[in-house]
Amino acid sequence: MNNNNSQLEAILRHEIPLTEFMGIDVFKYNGKTLSLRAPLAPNINHKSTAFGGSLYSLAVLAGWGFLYLKFQEKELASTIVIYNSHISYDRPVSGEIVATCMAPEDKELEKFFTIYERKGKARISLHSIIMNDMQTAVTFTGNYVAHR
Amino acid sequence: MNNNNSQLEAILRHEIPLTEFMGIDVFKYNGKTLSLRAPLAPNINHKSTAFGGSLYSLAVLAGWGFLYLKFQEKELASTIVIYNSHISYDRPVSGEIVATCMAPEDKELEKFFTIYERKGKARISLHSIIMNDMQTAVTFTGNYVAHR
Repeated sequence: MNNNNSQLEAILRHEIPLTEFMGIDVFKYNGKTLSLRAPLAPNINHKSTAFGGSLYSLAVLAGWGFLYLKFQEKELASTIVIYNSHISYDRPVSGEIVATCMAPEDKELEKFFTIYERKGKARISLHSIIMNDMQTAVTFTGNYVAHR
Repeated sequence: MNNNNSQLEAILRHEIPLTEFMGIDVFKYNGKTLSLRAPLAPNINHKSTAFGGSLYSLAVLAGWGFLYLKFQEKELASTIVIYNSHISYDRPVSGEIVATCMAPEDKELEKFFTIYERKGKARISLHSIIMNDMQTAVTFTGNYVAHR
């Protein structure tokens, strides 16, 4: 794991105690997608599948973390906040939870950073998914705002 | 606290370990609104306000719990599941978190139970809010399905 990834993991686990309890770690980052992972046990519900609030938390943090890493790569400081989101639960998640945020198109990300550098504030929409047994179980869209 | 309320609290805390960590309790229920409460400390984020995933969890559970209590009142068994939701964060929450689900109109709730009793399955949309310093901080709409 490179330095930025382990910094992200440290922020999640040390500054948001809920993520420590959930057992979240940074699973994979390749510049285009970020996957966060958590075991089922601490995130289980009354039906022995993943609790909707845990799935949401992992999905919203995958988007937040993706943006955090993009800011690190550009060596820009920023505060990133979610301001609204939508989540659909299409299937239950019955094992390890992996939430993956997928990069928006290059030109969209460039536009976001151009606005950020000019105005000190910019908004972006990010999508995350959670799979279960090779099928999409959860789809998430979050609207984030970054400001200096 | 009456028997149904303490049953709800037991389900939340014992069957969803995340809610135990979050410190959730049933704060108030009067048949028209259900409020769930959690302290800030276990739900804090990197900005020393409530983590968006905790706010979401409390809001989604307020809706789920409201429906659970309505089913208890009617002495009907049911499995209740969230299938999609939208949340807006308009202000940060900087103290104790109280999420309140407000009953839909009587005729809407009646229609929901009529369909449930006829088909063994019904859907309903529920709204929850979280206040901060007398102002609405979070608005949540969840679509739930109940089935036998």
